[in-house]
Amino acid sequence: MRNDRFLRACRREPVDRVPVWLMRQAGRYMREYREIRHNIPFMELVKDVDLATRISLQPYRRFHMDAVILFSDILVPVQAMGMDVSIPEGGPKIKHPVRTLQDVNELKVPDPTGSTKFVLEILERLRMELRDEAPLIGFAGAPFTLASYMIEGGGSRNFAVIKAMLYSQPATLHALLDKITTTVSLYVRAQINAGAQAIQLFDTWAGELSAAQYREFALPYTQRIFESIGNLGVPRLLFVNGCGTLLEAMAESGADVLSVDWRVDLGEVRARLDSTIALQGNVDPCVLLSTPEAVEHEASQAIFKGGGRGHILNLGHGILPTTPEENVATFVETAKKIFMVQTGQGVKQG
Amino acid sequence: MRNDRFLRACRREPVDRVPVWLMRQAGRYMREYREIRHNIPFMELVKDVDLATRISLQPYRRFHMDAVILFSDILVPVQAMGMDVSIPEGGPKIKHPVRTLQDVNELKVPDPTGSTKFVLEILERLRMELRDEAPLIGFAGAPFTLASYMIEGGGSRNFAVIKAMLYSQPATLHALLDKITTTVSLYVRAQINAGAQAIQLFDTWAGELSAAQYREFALPYTQRIFESIGNLGVPRLLFVNGCGTLLEAMAESGADVLSVDWRVDLGEVRARLDSTIALQGNVDPCVLLSTPEAVEHEASQAIFKGGGRGHILNLGHGILPTTPEENVATFVETAKKIFMVQTGQGVKQG
Repeated sequence: MRNDRFLRACRREPVDRVPVWLMRQAGRYMREYREIRHNIPFMELVKDVDLATRISLQPYRRFHMDAVILFSDILVPVQAMGMDVSIPEGGPKIKHPVRTLQDVNELKVPDPTGSTKFVLEILERLRMELRDEAPLIGFAGAPFTLASYMIEGGGSRNFAVIKAMLYSQPATLHALLDKITTTVSLYVRAQINAGAQAIQLFDTWAGELSAAQYREFALPYTQRIFESIGNLGVPRLLFVNGCGTLLEAMAESGADVLSVDWRVDLGEVRARLDSTIALQGNVDPCVLLSTPEAVEHEASQAIFKGGGRGHILNLGHGILPTTPEENVATFVETAKKIFMVQTGQGVKQG
Repeated sequence: MRNDRFLRACRREPVDRVPVWLMRQAGRYMREYREIRHNIPFMELVKDVDLATRISLQPYRRFHMDAVILFSDILVPVQAMGMDVSIPEGGPKIKHPVRTLQDVNELKVPDPTGSTKFVLEILERLRMELRDEAPLIGFAGAPFTLASYMIEGGGSRNFAVIKAMLYSQPATLHALLDKITTTVSLYVRAQINAGAQAIQLFDTWAGELSAAQYREFALPYTQRIFESIGNLGVPRLLFVNGCGTLLEAMAESGADVLSVDWRVDLGEVRARLDSTIALQGNVDPCVLLSTPEAVEHEASQAIFKGGGRGHILNLGHGILPTTPEENVATFVETAKKIFMVQTGQGVKQG
């Protein structure tokens, strides 16, 4: 691997500088993406092995991040479970949402080498194209977050339906989470077999839960997935938006890296957690809507607060579609300008 | 005052039982409200002194909460500042949002006895109707939250526009926050003069900020407003949704009571804060979409964790419009069933 900074940082090994990538780095903010995408429905785009491979590589070829992430969507395995998923401009829509135990029972646990084979093919193609230049990240949605889409029928403001189920039919919710967990465990294992060199689980909406609820309805399922790939030796990353009250619980998930949002201070997160865990984040994606000066300032702050070792510079949530490309360039360049001092104990401006 | 439990709890004085009310307790979940409302545009409804008085009293007459809150909207003073505000079903819309210093300069600081006189009249009417049966709460939006509506032009998912301003034109944002602060200070002072016996500031969206940003763009303004009414002797309450990483800063606001969302544990909040501050909350509004059994369980848990003294039972965010009235009754009744032990140091099932 010619550039293994990302993998080394995941393992808290010394690096010459903090590695950098951006959640949703392949996507709508890039002109080249919009040109490829045209009017292709999103769920068709992610299934087109040629196009998805090209799109995954676009940000890497242009901005030279330290990792490439598969271009896909967390709802791909949800569709494979038998649900009717579409992703129009306004956000995901799922017909016939899950509301009863009967609905749960009707869902399949898909063989990932069957209906989601295209994901594995994209990963294989990416590894071939990358020729070990940079590491390849696979990903999946974590069970609570996938369940929220499957129950709400799409995105949600209040998560009222899944919460009502959580309070009044917890056994139904657990049955669904269990089935998703098996699905995702097989799915990420297949991704690793197809070439993924790290796995990030997105539990984007788990920040809607109290810590006690997180420990009941999210953590055990995330643990099972991470456990199921524990013997494969790839770093496991966990993202939760609004993680401030959940960090200690998230640290018990088996994750090697916690990917944290901008509401928490990286220095304080370090102090709260065991030193064996690496951190990823946590620049507010809205910073990239402002000026290059602000981007450089905030990215530098994140690097200094992250302490240099066991830190991957990233955003605190996915990049926004209206982000100017210039600001992405500045974000990546900022990481490249700040080098570690030789002791590996701190960072200095290079 | 025949029922002063709410005011006593705000001051951390002993009470026979924990007082209870619900954020947005007057509103769409009540059949009687929907009957009055009909097709009256929302911003006209809040200006109709007769109707707004009746609506404010509806939940109290029906469920006998321990406090009555003015039926109004946080955008009332924003309209008085000169902005074009409407509140259709889909949420607030503000035409010509604030984007430049020039826009800020064109806003008025309204005399609350002028264009928002109706609010004061509603408060006066409510005090007359209540005849000191129960305390009357006035309220306003806190500056950061009002600024978010004024800049975004309505509700927001990512708060991308206000955040871009925060990062690239902080002086413009501060100028706006300053003008809102003066407006709200005058507005809540007038509410107290008109009969409000407590003031709650809603900084609903401040949970989008990091603690450092909260200390720069929210806390000083909230402090100024609370300071401006400090000599009037009414309890000051502060609500932030997603307050988990902000509690210590919020406690410096001058608030007598922090109203906290469901993501935090009341027992842990107690441990983190100075014992001179009272707490309000923090049942997940989604609990009230489930069963009476779940409502009773969660409300009881909140009461026990709140520790009995200096706690007001409430939701962690506003009640949802789809809430069954039966569950509101159960929520209120749960508070009424649990009495303090005589030492005032704990709670027991009555």
